[in-house]
Amino acid sequence: FISKLPDVGTTIFTVMSKLAHQEGAINLAQGFPGFDSDPKLQQLVTKAMSDGYNQYAPMPGVYGLREQIANKINTLYDSDYHPESEVTVTAGATQAIYTIVSAFIRPRDEVIVLKPAYDCYEPAVTVNGGAIVPIQLKAPLYKVNWSAVERAITPKTKMLFINTPHNPTGTILDKEDMMELSRILKGTDIILLSDEVYEHIVFDGKKHESVARYPELRARSFITASFGKTFHNTGWKMGYTVAPKALMEEFQKVHQFNVFSVHHPSQKAFATYLKEPEHYLRLNDFFQQKRDLFLDLIKDSRFKVTPAAGTYFQMLDYSEITQKEDVDFAKRLTKDHKVASIPTSVFNLHQEDFKMLRFCFAKDDETLKKAATILCNI
Amino acid sequence: FISKLPDVGTTIFTVMSKLAHQEGAINLAQGFPGFDSDPKLQQLVTKAMSDGYNQYAPMPGVYGLREQIANKINTLYDSDYHPESEVTVTAGATQAIYTIVSAFIRPRDEVIVLKPAYDCYEPAVTVNGGAIVPIQLKAPLYKVNWSAVERAITPKTKMLFINTPHNPTGTILDKEDMMELSRILKGTDIILLSDEVYEHIVFDGKKHESVARYPELRARSFITASFGKTFHNTGWKMGYTVAPKALMEEFQKVHQFNVFSVHHPSQKAFATYLKEPEHYLRLNDFFQQKRDLFLDLIKDSRFKVTPAAGTYFQMLDYSEITQKEDVDFAKRLTKDHKVASIPTSVFNLHQEDFKMLRFCFAKDDETLKKAATILCNI
Ligand SMILES: CSCCC(=O)C(=O)O
Ligand SMILES: CSCCC(=O)C(=O)O
Repeated sequence: FISKLPDVGTTIFTVMSKLAHQEGAINLAQGFPGFDSDPKLQQLVTKAMSDGYNQYAPMPGVYGLREQIANKINTLYDSDYHPESEVTVTAGATQAIYTIVSAFIRPRDEVIVLKPAYDCYEPAVTVNGGAIVPIQLKAPLYKVNWSAVERAITPKTKMLFINTPHNPTGTILDKEDMMELSRILKGTDIILLSDEVYEHIVFDGKKHESVARYPELRARSFITASFGKTFHNTGWKMGYTVAPKALMEEFQKVHQFNVFSVHHPSQKAFATYLKEPEHYLRLNDFFQQKRDLFLDLIKDSRFKVTPAAGTYFQMLDYSEITQKEDVDFAKRLTKDHKVASIPTSVFNLHQEDFKMLRFCFAKDDETLKKAATILCNI
Repeated sequence: FISKLPDVGTTIFTVMSKLAHQEGAINLAQGFPGFDSDPKLQQLVTKAMSDGYNQYAPMPGVYGLREQIANKINTLYDSDYHPESEVTVTAGATQAIYTIVSAFIRPRDEVIVLKPAYDCYEPAVTVNGGAIVPIQLKAPLYKVNWSAVERAITPKTKMLFINTPHNPTGTILDKEDMMELSRILKGTDIILLSDEVYEHIVFDGKKHESVARYPELRARSFITASFGKTFHNTGWKMGYTVAPKALMEEFQKVHQFNVFSVHHPSQKAFATYLKEPEHYLRLNDFFQQKRDLFLDLIKDSRFKVTPAAGTYFQMLDYSEITQKEDVDFAKRLTKDHKVASIPTSVFNLHQEDFKMLRFCFAKDDETLKKAATILCNI
């Protein structure tokens, strides 16, 4: 057979986590918290199991959970999603993204992706025969040049991906970005896929700009979100997507034959847990403290820093330390210094231009201190 | 937008479960057990959560679980799957099937499907641009005419689906079928997708013929399996697929970007639970008793029966009761008589030829008795 993904290897997250494990390194690579989810949430899962919620959940998700999701979004972002027809619970945001792309992208359709981009976007498009139209953003601010995006649109453009807060750069889109994007997309049929999994991790008093707030965008958008990122249980693989009814109907046609439905006991647990907004609203402060600590700890290192505005990732520019290629440097750092990070060239267009590593600071303070001490001595 | 799946509505399982719920009917439609999974298994999940296994599992699955899976298959079917490179844990067999198809099927590839067929096979092929080549099997025995299969093979044939024990018909393939299939596929590049989710539910002392036993087949096959079907927790959405290394590598390229990995605490639980073969070997007897009870209870009804050889489904021929189309009759039965079943024409090629409903007997004896009393009065 000839591979449908000849250029795809194992995702960098698996590669670096494996290496970190082998080398006994502090793992600031793959993005997952180093602390546990709320014991209350685990107890709710245990209760759901013993209450007998162990058979198939409804295909779009437990209704009570879809209600909580719609309430949350509609309250936070002043939108009007309907729980019955516009919300689907998914096996993480990744499964939502893969399913969205599968439901809409055909051979030769064009999909605009802003680079750097999370590594699951493009293979989904490729598997479905679509063509990526990449637009490279420039370090260290990674501001979107919306005229460049506008120029990239052709009659074949079917979909556009955005991601705010942005992985791996930690940047966020602001109101002006959203207005520009609205202007550009108005009058087109382009579907917007807005990956907002870090919506509750935004720093310095700034506000998350969800596409849900912008009618012109909302009407054409899938928003993807993640309980794993928000509630410290990436291993439970649960998230959701919302979209207007007509789009959601097409999504569910594929979703029902991709996974059919997702883990029932966890859905029952989240349906209860989401009733207290405090459970997700406190996340900003929690991670602000982490980011500030990490930045403070490495301020005397030779890494150059532009503080992350959101996400639990911090990009560090190592150009004053070495001119080594970033994959090599990340591996050396893991093997020789026992700190693992993610090389970011793999998410970019022109790999050689970037002397940037991404560090995950969703770790306990002790771990961050240990890692920072090492980074300051490089 | 133009739908990629214009002919696909909501899966019949969702439609009938919803109707059963609305009508307060006994739900013998969608295939899920009416009893709970082993409390020991639930306790193992709770323990895994409190032991902190709440972040991403490794992409192919927890290694200890992959070991248990390989052991189980290699012991039962005399094969030699390697846990590191030839096993992936999936979000149910459905996700495995969707991912297999996505990883290999391109526009205009042909996929041979024996009908009736479970309803997730074909949309996966269609979404990926492939063409279904259906071969209709004939009620009530549904024996495969392997010469017809052989004649259906063209240079474009990329994949062939088999399913044993078979949903919805309850038939199984025997050794002779496997030998014939080996002969037909020998010398071709055709990938075999063998859906064996009911492998542990085979009656009357017969033996499950896994493709894992047949070297000519094994070398070109993905086998899909389901913990939900075997351990009475369809709502946990966990299963696995095994295949030779080269095929599995391609599978994982897509899997990692479809769901990345699956529910970590459940994987830890199954890794322990699978150590006792009794936990799955006792399933045959358990369901044999159910099937025998159900057949006995309806023996005086006007339905014609060919006993299921495997699965937890029994097909009933209602041609002596009415000539109504099966979807209509299933709905009437649900609304007027309060027993829900699955109309089987939706899985067939020529819908009008079938006067068959499928009943799930994975229910407690009381429920089966109540349902049978109703069915005997129709
Ligand atoms: C699915 S593994 C990657 C986790 C993640 O979101 C990241 O590290 O960026
Ligand atoms: C995924 S819902 C359908 C469950 C099932 O396997 C069946 O009823 O055949």
